Amino acid sequence: MKHTIGILVENHFGVLTRVSGLFSARGFNISSLAVGETEDPTISRMTIVVDGDERILEQIMKQLNKLIDVIKVADLTQEDSIDRELALIKVAVTPATRAEIIQIVNTFRSKIVDVNPRTLTIEMTGPEGKIDALIELMKPFGILEVVNTGIIAIARASELRFNTAKQGPAGKAKTATKKKTAKAKKK
Amino acid sequence: MKHTIGILVENHFGVLTRVSGLFSARGFNISSLAVGETEDPTISRMTIVVDGDERILEQIMKQLNKLIDVIKVADLTQEDSIDRELALIKVAVTPATRAEIIQIVNTFRSKIVDVNPRTLTIEMTGPEGKIDALIELMKPFGILEVVNTGIIAIARASELRFNTAKQGPAGKAKTATKKKTAKAKKK
Repeated sequence: MKHTIGILVENHFGVLTRVSGLFSARGFNISSLAVGETEDPTISRMTIVVDGDERILEQIMKQLNKLIDVIKVADLTQEDSIDRELALIKVAVTPATRAEIIQIVNTFRSKIVDVNPRTLTIEMTGPEGKIDALIELMKPFGILEVVNTGIIAIARASELRFNTAKQGPAGKAKTATKKKTAKAKKK
Repeated sequence: MKHTIGILVENHFGVLTRVSGLFSARGFNISSLAVGETEDPTISRMTIVVDGDERILEQIMKQLNKLIDVIKVADLTQEDSIDRELALIKVAVTPATRAEIIQIVNTFRSKIVDVNPRTLTIEMTGPEGKIDALIELMKPFGILEVVNTGIIAIARASELRFNTAKQGPAGKAKTATKKKTAKAKKK
């Protein structure tokens, strides 16, 4: 089963390697990973999509929680969450096919971000599956390049907050929360 | 100086760890990384943004090219490229602030993807900087969560193709290209 894991980490070098190493050491293939800064530039948030055994994943999540740079870990698969990904798709174009491609792009409510005499670049945002559907439709025209951000996810419920400033109510949140006291380690 | 590196890799487990390990071993902090499948599910494409010394980066790129699972590496900083990132931003909302937030969201041509009595979740796509600008404007209302995909980039010129099927003209592309013959290693 596919799992979407959200991880809040200190923005130190090597964190990404340590986190991805935990998965690869257990033979888990990361099918998508996105890391970006949060509103606080010292803190990054990763979204990892993995496919594998539930029990081993639980072990990995416990180990993630033990890493000094990891602030919080959450399995967003179980939560009611909003999933989105972004792709840039470069398609071959001829005067004969241009109109048809633009029509498909409009139907998908995606955007054309670059035009060349021979290519079109499409920007597409959506939940998983929607981008794949557009790629399938573009294949007959000739896809030259696809770049995909991988999935990011955010829980609908405000109970499961990834916020560092405030500690959310413990109530429904299954996730282990770690308070960082070892600020001495910084630097 | 910030560099945007595009890497085309075989979708095997452990690749991400090996690639990110090359950067962290040299003390490079990866400020953003996005990995997703391309139109060919056996091939993934990474976009990595790093900040650091030019010479060391050149060494790292040479080493990346030596990795068996790496198909192609390109420094997209030097190219005329299209950069995009996607963020989901959850903001605290009250009946008094809702209208003002929605107005800002519309100005930025971003989208509201979830509404709660106490929160709004915004989906925002754009080049680097635009998302930061929206986050800054939302801060006074109270940001609860930010998830960012990190940047993905695609070269405008069709000369620098990340396509595996065809070998692009060698002309202007500075990038080293590796032909995969070691298909025996697969499995």
